[in-house]
Amino acid sequence: MLSFVNDYSEGAHPAILRRLSETNMEQLPGYGSDHYCASAKDRIRKACGTPDADVWFLVGGTQTNQNILDAVAPPYAGILCADNGHINVHEAGAIESTGRKVLAIPGHDGKLSAADVSRWCEGFFADANHEHMVCPGAVYISHPTEYGTLYSAAELEELSKVCREYHLPLVLDGARLGYGLTAPDADPDLADIARLTDVFTIGGTKVGALFGEAVVFTHTPAPKHFLTMIKRRGALLAKGWLLGLQFDTLFTDDLYLSISHHANEEAGKIRAALKAKGYRLANEASTNQILVTMDHATIDRLSHQVGMGFMLRVDDDHDVMRICTSWATTDEHTDQLIALL
Amino acid sequence: MLSFVNDYSEGAHPAILRRLSETNMEQLPGYGSDHYCASAKDRIRKACGTPDADVWFLVGGTQTNQNILDAVAPPYAGILCADNGHINVHEAGAIESTGRKVLAIPGHDGKLSAADVSRWCEGFFADANHEHMVCPGAVYISHPTEYGTLYSAAELEELSKVCREYHLPLVLDGARLGYGLTAPDADPDLADIARLTDVFTIGGTKVGALFGEAVVFTHTPAPKHFLTMIKRRGALLAKGWLLGLQFDTLFTDDLYLSISHHANEEAGKIRAALKAKGYRLANEASTNQILVTMDHATIDRLSHQVGMGFMLRVDDDHDVMRICTSWATTDEHTDQLIALL
Amino acid sequence: MLSFVNDYSEGAHPAILRRLSETNMEQLPGYGSDHYCASAKDRIRKACGTPDADVWFLVGGTQTNQNILDAVAPPYAGILCADNGHINVHEAGAIESTGRKVLAIPGHDGKLSAADVSRWCEGFFADANHEHMVCPGAVYISHPTEYGTLYSAAELEELSKVCREYHLPLVLDGARLGYGLTAPDADPDLADIARLTDVFTIGGTKVGALFGEAVVFTHTPAPKHFLTMIKRRGALLAKGWLLGLQFDTLFTDDLYLSISHHANEEAGKIRAALKAKGYRLANEASTNQILVTMDHATIDRLSHQVGMGFMLRVDDDHDVMRICTSWATTDEHTDQLIALL
Amino acid sequence: MLSFVNDYSEGAHPAILRRLSETNMEQLPGYGSDHYCASAKDRIRKACGTPDADVWFLVGGTQTNQNILDAVAPPYAGILCADNGHINVHEAGAIESTGRKVLAIPGHDGKLSAADVSRWCEGFFADANHEHMVCPGAVYISHPTEYGTLYSAAELEELSKVCREYHLPLVLDGARLGYGLTAPDADPDLADIARLTDVFTIGGTKVGALFGEAVVFTHTPAPKHFLTMIKRRGALLAKGWLLGLQFDTLFTDDLYLSISHHANEEAGKIRAALKAKGYRLANEASTNQILVTMDHATIDRLSHQVGMGFMLRVDDDHDVMRICTSWATTDEHTDQLIALL
Repeated sequence: MLSFVNDYSEGAHPAILRRLSETNMEQLPGYGSDHYCASAKDRIRKACGTPDADVWFLVGGTQTNQNILDAVAPPYAGILCADNGHINVHEAGAIESTGRKVLAIPGHDGKLSAADVSRWCEGFFADANHEHMVCPGAVYISHPTEYGTLYSAAELEELSKVCREYHLPLVLDGARLGYGLTAPDADPDLADIARLTDVFTIGGTKVGALFGEAVVFTHTPAPKHFLTMIKRRGALLAKGWLLGLQFDTLFTDDLYLSISHHANEEAGKIRAALKAKGYRLANEASTNQILVTMDHATIDRLSHQVGMGFMLRVDDDHDVMRICTSWATTDEHTDQLIALL
Repeated sequence: MLSFVNDYSEGAHPAILRRLSETNMEQLPGYGSDHYCASAKDRIRKACGTPDADVWFLVGGTQTNQNILDAVAPPYAGILCADNGHINVHEAGAIESTGRKVLAIPGHDGKLSAADVSRWCEGFFADANHEHMVCPGAVYISHPTEYGTLYSAAELEELSKVCREYHLPLVLDGARLGYGLTAPDADPDLADIARLTDVFTIGGTKVGALFGEAVVFTHTPAPKHFLTMIKRRGALLAKGWLLGLQFDTLFTDDLYLSISHHANEEAGKIRAALKAKGYRLANEASTNQILVTMDHATIDRLSHQVGMGFMLRVDDDHDVMRICTSWATTDEHTDQLIALL
Repeated sequence: MLSFVNDYSEGAHPAILRRLSETNMEQLPGYGSDHYCASAKDRIRKACGTPDADVWFLVGGTQTNQNILDAVAPPYAGILCADNGHINVHEAGAIESTGRKVLAIPGHDGKLSAADVSRWCEGFFADANHEHMVCPGAVYISHPTEYGTLYSAAELEELSKVCREYHLPLVLDGARLGYGLTAPDADPDLADIARLTDVFTIGGTKVGALFGEAVVFTHTPAPKHFLTMIKRRGALLAKGWLLGLQFDTLFTDDLYLSISHHANEEAGKIRAALKAKGYRLANEASTNQILVTMDHATIDRLSHQVGMGFMLRVDDDHDVMRICTSWATTDEHTDQLIALL
Repeated sequence: MLSFVNDYSEGAHPAILRRLSETNMEQLPGYGSDHYCASAKDRIRKACGTPDADVWFLVGGTQTNQNILDAVAPPYAGILCADNGHINVHEAGAIESTGRKVLAIPGHDGKLSAADVSRWCEGFFADANHEHMVCPGAVYISHPTEYGTLYSAAELEELSKVCREYHLPLVLDGARLGYGLTAPDADPDLADIARLTDVFTIGGTKVGALFGEAVVFTHTPAPKHFLTMIKRRGALLAKGWLLGLQFDTLFTDDLYLSISHHANEEAGKIRAALKAKGYRLANEASTNQILVTMDHATIDRLSHQVGMGFMLRVDDDHDVMRICTSWATTDEHTDQLIALL
C-alpha cells in the first residue's frame, strides 16, 4: 500500500548504502574516533560556516534531545518549549527521566515566540517564591516544527536575543532540518541557525540516512565529559563510523539539501492538488509535512489505499491528517496519491 | 508585625511541646518503630474508621508527595493533577526529580474534575501513538486545594470512580486537611476520604505540629520496601518518635479538629469583614485561606502593617492576595487585621 | 595496521549488507512492528526452543543492559554482579544513572559463583539493618565473561537455583554469546540458557551485525509498557526493521553460529602459537578473547605492527594484553599475527 | 532496659527544648530565612574561624549527604569513599538514587588514605578507556568514621592535597563531629577541618539536637540555586528556624563541645573497664563508639539487660558489637553497664 505516513519508512539514500558496502571490511577505531567521523564533522562545520563548532553524532532523535539537554541544563532546571514540542508529548518522558521538568508554553502553529518566552521568564523571576519553583535551564524549539512550520530569521533572532538575556542555551531540534532549509519560503540558512542557536541538530533519520542525528555545538564546545555522558545514557554507538560515513555522504555535493528539496517539491504538488480539490490545509507550512482537515468519510475511503497519519480531532466529523513526503517519495507515488484525493 | 502570610509561621500547639518535654529522656528505638508511633497510627486508623489502613509519618509536604508518588506509580508513568497543583508549581520539580512527568490539566478553582480526568484518559488511550507518550500512573489532588477550595463528597466519589476505571491510584494531599474537615461547608469526612482515595495525607506542619505529615494507605498496605524507599530519598527521620508523639497528641481528644475549626472561624470573621467593606473574594472557599482581590494602593498601605501572600496578578491595578489564618491565630490578631482592612 | 583490538572493528557480515540493499526502498512501519522483526523473533524463539519467549531488539550493549535492568528490578534495588562485570566498570555508570546501585562481588576469572551470591544474600537478609541498605533486585552475569571465560551448565544451573530461591531475576549478558555457544568447551546451549535465565541477550554488534542486541525474556513476557520504557531511555530505533533484518539474517542457516565458530578457531590457532612460544595465558578461556601476559619490551615491539588491548597491569615489567578475534578475522590476519609474536 | 545501642535514642539537650518553648509563638518567616538561623550561622562561622563560610541547615544525615554530593559533583561523576562509608552501605542507595555511582575503596579502620585515593586516581586517568568509566567527582570521608576512628591533622592535610591535585571537592561527614573534636586524641580542630575540606557537616541529630545537620561550605559558597536543589529533593524544612534555634543553642557557650566531651568520658570509662576485664577492642578509637569483640555466650547474656549494636561477624563464636555513649549518657548508666560486663 502507498504510504505517506511519515518520512522514515524507507532505508537510506543509495549513495549511503554504497559507501557502507565499500568500507565494510575496513578496520576502524570505535566510538566515533575514526576518520570518517572526522571528515563528516569538517564538512558540517564548512556547511555552517563555523570552523570552531563542535560536532557529535548520535543514533536517534529522542536520544539526541535527551543527551543535549542533559548536557546544557542542570538537572534542577526546566526546559522551556512549545506545548506540542516533541520533548513534551512524544518522547515518553525522556527529559523527565533525567530529572528535568519540561516547562510547556502554548505554541503558535507549533512555534514558540520570543515574546512568550520573555513574558514567562519575567513572570518567573518576579515571583517571590521562584526559588521553590523550577527555574528555566534551556529553551527548546523544533525547526521545522512538529506541524511543518518554520521560524523566520527575524523570529529566530528575537528568540536568540531573549535566550541570551536570560542566559538560556537555545537548542534547535532539526530532526527535519533539510526540509526546513530547502522549503520555498525557507528563511534562516545553516549559517543563521549556527549563529543564533547554542546547539542544533541535523537530522539524518528522516532525511536520507538509515539513522543518525548530528549535533552541532555552535559557540562553545560540548561540556567536558560529553562522551562519558553519552555512554552513561546508553547512547554511544560502538561502530561510530556508521554515523560518520552517513553524514559524510549527506554533506558531499549537497546531497542533504538536494534530497530535501525534492521532498518539498513533491509536497508542493500535493498541496496544490489539495487546494484545487477544495481541501482545507491546517497551516501555511511549506515543508514536507502537510496537515489537512478531512471528513471521516474521506479518511475512511482513503485509508484502504494510502497510509496517512492522524494529527488531531477537529470535531465529530473531521480530523486533521498528516501527509508526509520524504527524500524517498517518487513522482509516481505523488501522482497516485493525487489521483486518490 | 502582624502576619497572615501563611499557616506555618509559629511552632506547635503547646500540648505537643509539653509531651516532647515529658518524654525527652526516654530511650526509644529509631525510625518510627517506637510505641508513640504505634499509638498514633492506631488513633488515626480509628479516626478514619479503617482498622486495616497502613499509616506512615514523614517530615514535610514536598517530601511526602515525592515519596508517595514514587511508591505508587512506576517511574515511566506520569501524575495527573490540576495545573496549579502543588506538585506542578511549588515543589521545585521534586516529582520530575524521580523521573516522572507531571501531567497538568487545567483546574477549576484549584480542583480537578472527574470529567476532565476521564476525557484526558480516553483521549490518551485512543491515540495510536500513546505508547510513545507518558501514560498516567496516578491522580493527585489537594483537599483543601491550594486556593482553599474543597471537593464535595460527590465530586470525590466521581473522581474515585474514574480513577478505578483506569486503575489509577487516587492520592489526596491533605497538607491542610484539618481545615477542610472542619469548614462550614465541609462535605467528605475522614471516613469518606479513606474510602474514596488510595492514599491520603494528614498535614501536621500547617495544623499544629512543629512538622510532620501522616500518610494513610487506605485499602492496601504501602508497597513492599517502603521504608527503604523513604530512606533512599533521604526522608527517614532518625528520631521517628518525634512524629509519632505529635500525631498522637493531635489525634487525642480531637485536638486536630478543634484547632482547625478555630482557624476556620477566624477566617470566617475576616471574610465577613472583607465582604462588608466591599472587597471582592476570589472564590467561595470556606477554609483558612482567603483569596481576595485588592488594588495596589490598598496592598501598599496594608503591607506596612500586616503580612499577606501574593497569589496572582489580576490587572495593572489589582492583585489577588492571600490572607491565611491558622491554629495559632488569636482573636486579637483577627480583630487587628479587620481594623486595618 | 593489523588489528586484534576488539571484535567490533569491521562493519557487518556481507549477507547482512546484501539484505539491507535488497529491502532498502520497501516501505515499512517503524519501531519494530515490521515483518522482518517478526520473522527474526520467530527464528530466535525456534533456536532457543522457547515458543513463548518474548524477544526485543535494541541497538547497543550498554543500552541493552540499562533497559533490561530498568525493567526487571525496582529502582531502589541493586544489581548483583562480578566486580569486573561490564555494568560495574565499563558502562560509565549507566545503571546508576537509573537510580540503581551495582552491588559488586569479587569474581572468579570474571564469573560469579552461586555460592558467593548465596552467601551475600544470606548475609544481607540476616543483617538487622538491611532495610537501610540496598536490597538485591537482580543478578547480572556475562557469558562469555569480559575475560572470555564461560560458565558450565552446572554452574549456571546452580546460579539459577540461588536466584530463584531469592526471587532474583537472572540476567545474562550475551554480548559475545555466539563465541560462547561455539567454543571447544561450550557447555550450556541456547536451550539451557533460555531455561536457566530470566532474560538473556544475543549480541549482534560483536558477532556479525552492524549493531544490535536481541533481548529474550524467557519465561514471562517483558514487563508491561516495555516499549514506553525503551522510548523513555532514548533507545527506540525509528527504523526498527534494521535490527530485525540483521537478526533474521544471522539466524538463517545458523550464520550466527558458523561465524562465531570461525572466530574461535582463529583464536585457537593464536593460543596454540602463544603457548608454543612460551607466553603465559591469563586463563583457560576458549572463546575469541585471548588474555596473555607480556613483558613491556614485547608489547612495545608489537605495538607498531598489531593492535591489541590493554587489560591490566601485572607488575612493573608485565601487563595482561587482550588479543581478540572475530567473525571478520581472516586466516591471513591470524598468520601475520602469529609470525609477529 | 539500659540502651547503648546508638547516640540518637533520646530527644534533645534540655536547653534546646527550653528555647523551643520560649520562642514557640513567635511568628517567623519560613525556610531558614529567620533571625535564629542567621545567628546560628554566625556562631558557626566564628567557631570555625571562617567569616566567609556559607552555612546551611538540613534535617537528617542521609539527606544531608545526598544534597551536598548532588550539589558538588556532576551526576555522571562518582563519589570516592571508604568501602564501609555510610553512603556506601547504610543509606539505601541515596547517592545512586541521584544517578551517581559510589566508588568504594577498601578503608583502613574506616579511613580513606591519601595514598589510596592518589593511586586510584592515577590508575583511572592512566586507563585508555577511562572516558567509558565513572570518573571521580568528589571524595567523601567521615570524621569520626563509622568505626569511631579519627583522622589525624596530617592525614587530613594529605587527603586535602590529593583532592586539590585532582580537583575533587573533599566532603567530610561530621554526623558525630562533636565526639571527634573532643576526643582525648583529637587532632584536627574546627579551623583545620574548615581549612582542609570543601564542605563539612556538623551533626546535631547524634549530638544533642532533636534533629539537624549543619552544612559548611568552607571556601566558596554553595552552588547557585542550592535552596532549589534542597527543595527539589524534598529536604527543605518549612519551619527552618527549628534548625537555626537548635544550632544557635548548641553553639552558645560551647554546649556542643561540652556535651560531646562528656560522652567521650563515659566511653573512656567503659573502654577501661572492658580492657580490665579482658575484652578485646576492635580498634584504637577514642570517641563515643566502642567496638568490642564478644563471644556469643556473653552477647546472649548481656542482650537481656543492655542494648548494644551488632557490627560484624568475626567467626562462628564471636561478633564485633558496638557500645555507644552520647550526650545523654549518665554516670549511672555507665556504672550499670560496667557492672554487667
